[in-house]
Amino acid sequence: MRKTRQERRGLLIVNTGNGKGKSTAAFGMVLRAWGRDMRTCVIQFIKSEKGQWGEIKAAKKLGLEWHITGDGFTWDSKDLDETAARAIHGWELAKEKIASKMYELIVLDEMTYAFQFGWLKIGEVMAWLAENKPADLHLVITGRDAPQELIDAADLVTEMSPVRHPFDKGIYAQPGIEY
Amino acid sequence: MRKTRQERRGLLIVNTGNGKGKSTAAFGMVLRAWGRDMRTCVIQFIKSEKGQWGEIKAAKKLGLEWHITGDGFTWDSKDLDETAARAIHGWELAKEKIASKMYELIVLDEMTYAFQFGWLKIGEVMAWLAENKPADLHLVITGRDAPQELIDAADLVTEMSPVRHPFDKGIYAQPGIEY
Repeated sequence: MRKTRQERRGLLIVNTGNGKGKSTAAFGMVLRAWGRDMRTCVIQFIKSEKGQWGEIKAAKKLGLEWHITGDGFTWDSKDLDETAARAIHGWELAKEKIASKMYELIVLDEMTYAFQFGWLKIGEVMAWLAENKPADLHLVITGRDAPQELIDAADLVTEMSPVRHPFDKGIYAQPGIEY
Repeated sequence: MRKTRQERRGLLIVNTGNGKGKSTAAFGMVLRAWGRDMRTCVIQFIKSEKGQWGEIKAAKKLGLEWHITGDGFTWDSKDLDETAARAIHGWELAKEKIASKMYELIVLDEMTYAFQFGWLKIGEVMAWLAENKPADLHLVITGRDAPQELIDAADLVTEMSPVRHPFDKGIYAQPGIEY
């Protein structure tokens, strides 16, 4: 049976790959959802709250709910136990937000790294989501090397691949574009 | 010589491929740039202003400069000459905005289709950009099948590829996510 265009269905969306645009496309979805007065929440697993991120400045200006649970691990973490504890805290926070049924779109940004580094177990996370994700919640998970279990369970998976990157030309990351 | 992190350099950015996230990542950049109080402008080449797009609702709420020059060609255009004329008008408007030096980020959304359908000539567009694009302007062009000349000239090219798409499961496009 074909579903109707009107039917609301909460998607599990994964943006992965080694290219740019994984988080940026998730933020674009947040913008779109905000435009529709949908209730959104972003949890960032890696970035440090000390960073000067364009998206966080925008979130503050918009009054979006935006949590930064990381400590900037990939470039300047000094304590891996602390970084692991932050990832676990991020997932605890995510579970609370998901289970609350208060949101229509939740983004778990750069969560895949927590699987990669062994801070979270994909089997446990997927089992919890299968039990607890509200049917009408759109859940977006971003990051490189998405685990196969996540890809298998997702409704929409996009791989962002670099064709050319400005670092190739010796150009550094540009504010407003990459951060 | 290594460039410094502080150096501002306007990038030519292309989001292409058959997957989701090409336009959405461009809108995420607009959100990020807006967060930094950068002057932005979006020109959409294909979408009809009659459509109910989440990003357009968001743009209106934010007071972003957002032009819709298309008539929804890919799904309901009834007059191809009119559609071609609109694409040419879109490019005329883009040239005016680019040459004005008033912006730090301009998005030409779904412009590649205008090359694909022969409404615009890639050689002419690239020659004009080489002459006229301000050095500090970030210019983002999105759409499938980006012409090779555009890819060759770009600083950052990302290909978005579908790994899984919800239409595969018979799920229709969801408001706030895909539009």
